[in-house]
Amino acid sequence: MKKIINDPNEVVQEMTKGMAVAHSEQLHQLPGTTVIARNDAPNENKVGIVSGGGSGHEPAHAGYVGKGMLDAAVAGEVFTSPTPDQILEAIKAVDGGAGVFLIVKNYTGDVLNFEMAAELAEAEDIRVEKVVVNDDVAVDDVSSRRGIAGTILVHKIAGAKAEQGGSLEDVKSTAEKVIENVRSMGMALKPCTVPAAGVPSFELAENEMEIGIGIHGESGIERKDISTADDIAKELTDKILGDFDFSGSDTAVMVNGLGSTPDMELYIVSNKVQAILTDNGIYVDKTFVGEYMTSLEMAGCSVTLLKLDDELKQLLNEPSNAMAFQG
Amino acid sequence: MKKIINDPNEVVQEMTKGMAVAHSEQLHQLPGTTVIARNDAPNENKVGIVSGGGSGHEPAHAGYVGKGMLDAAVAGEVFTSPTPDQILEAIKAVDGGAGVFLIVKNYTGDVLNFEMAAELAEAEDIRVEKVVVNDDVAVDDVSSRRGIAGTILVHKIAGAKAEQGGSLEDVKSTAEKVIENVRSMGMALKPCTVPAAGVPSFELAENEMEIGIGIHGESGIERKDISTADDIAKELTDKILGDFDFSGSDTAVMVNGLGSTPDMELYIVSNKVQAILTDNGIYVDKTFVGEYMTSLEMAGCSVTLLKLDDELKQLLNEPSNAMAFQG
Repeated sequence: MKKIINDPNEVVQEMTKGMAVAHSEQLHQLPGTTVIARNDAPNENKVGIVSGGGSGHEPAHAGYVGKGMLDAAVAGEVFTSPTPDQILEAIKAVDGGAGVFLIVKNYTGDVLNFEMAAELAEAEDIRVEKVVVNDDVAVDDVSSRRGIAGTILVHKIAGAKAEQGGSLEDVKSTAEKVIENVRSMGMALKPCTVPAAGVPSFELAENEMEIGIGIHGESGIERKDISTADDIAKELTDKILGDFDFSGSDTAVMVNGLGSTPDMELYIVSNKVQAILTDNGIYVDKTFVGEYMTSLEMAGCSVTLLKLDDELKQLLNEPSNAMAFQG
Repeated sequence: MKKIINDPNEVVQEMTKGMAVAHSEQLHQLPGTTVIARNDAPNENKVGIVSGGGSGHEPAHAGYVGKGMLDAAVAGEVFTSPTPDQILEAIKAVDGGAGVFLIVKNYTGDVLNFEMAAELAEAEDIRVEKVVVNDDVAVDDVSSRRGIAGTILVHKIAGAKAEQGGSLEDVKSTAEKVIENVRSMGMALKPCTVPAAGVPSFELAENEMEIGIGIHGESGIERKDISTADDIAKELTDKILGDFDFSGSDTAVMVNGLGSTPDMELYIVSNKVQAILTDNGIYVDKTFVGEYMTSLEMAGCSVTLLKLDDELKQLLNEPSNAMAFQG
């Protein structure tokens, strides 16, 4: 295992401290936790927005803590849900009286632990609402669909809605609209290694790629020979277009790197995705290319499409000063 | 070679096109070139800023094209200097009458080709000035020092100076001040593979790392057993502090990933760098952690320190809308 770390069991603690020290002008670590929160939270005029999940997806989620996005992010161990007590600390830290909204990715542990934290917060008279993001179309059964890179667009849009003074119900309604209209699909060329495990989570031969990969080092739904960037872009995009009707609509596109795929390759994929969308009469209003939701040093990418209406378009274009949000 | 590409000989062309299509609201590709330029260039009230170099360092350099940074970036083939005619096209595209300033990294090909382009531009009555960035302290001989991640801070500060209406001479003088006060040092755990070559540029055993690495796939100055993140941070930072007196000063710090090193590891390194600087009485005013100047999918990092005075501090904090500049 070639990693720049100290103790494999302390990576999340050290990373969280490193983030807080590096960006102390706008965020801080809640003492005794791996929660990163905005320095200007809580804000009594604004719904607090909290997300999080296992670590190893950086810049998700702490990189999205900032004005116009999240108020706090909770980091679990690598690829492991954060505990309810840590999530509760985040909720308490950002509640200014207008309530707290939780953005959860659809994994069993995350859903259970965020739900439990919400109940504990409500017992302390904090109003809490949540959404569960399930943008990954690799899995046909909708209830089993995982939350992947599309989650970042939920962060952005729900965060902007809260920043504009939307009520807890408004923020929830807008976030649900994003979830209804967002779809993603990913693939990998190389697996990743969880520090505490020390070995890759699966193996891929030199000529193989894996389609429908998740972001937790789990293998995908189909293994096949590596094809060209254009074929990969087409396979991912076609799967998304087959799942949801984007025709005639304005969209946002995200081509997301999973960790070790150079921007060069992501832009080559993006180039083809845009051509496919144009051929399908789909107008691209906004494009994001880069590492937004990673899986440690996995090589691969995902494509995300979000169908936009006027409200979503406007909120997506609102400014944010979150460290990792480019666009 | 596991890469998401189509033709290894077309990666730069396809990437450039992909960038222009993805970010058409703020930049475009000059026809028949691999130059990316701002849509609002040329600006008659502003010095034009041009940088560039070999491809494979993304987001450098096109990711820094935007308000407050570069007006245009010229992309050569992977790890190969762009040709003088392409650089000349960039200069002509961004000259609004106030002159054009070139930011060049200290590699023989880049220095020669940017110089030749400057002469060609001057023959067309365009005023041109330039600086050569040589922040890499891995090499003792100052004239042989390479330009690495510190170049991004030159882009940022020179870009802000030009945006504020500084003359060509003002911009040059400020950029020279950055270069005098910036130092970097890098290391790698894994090499990278140039697409057209198909094999890694050097080999490292499973227990080995390379100190003093460059950003063109070349090997470094010392090979040794992998140590901890703290030891690596100390080795890189000590080398920088031994080269230039940062004591008692305000500084900016950049912990830069070379391509496949997760943000998690970069923040662990940053955590230690900050502690070392504090122990040395050096105040950190601003920290950048992420992938700013990469070497394809190389695993490793570099540390950059910039000594700040009031002018540099102010310019570094000016806003920029360049896609890849977070901070």
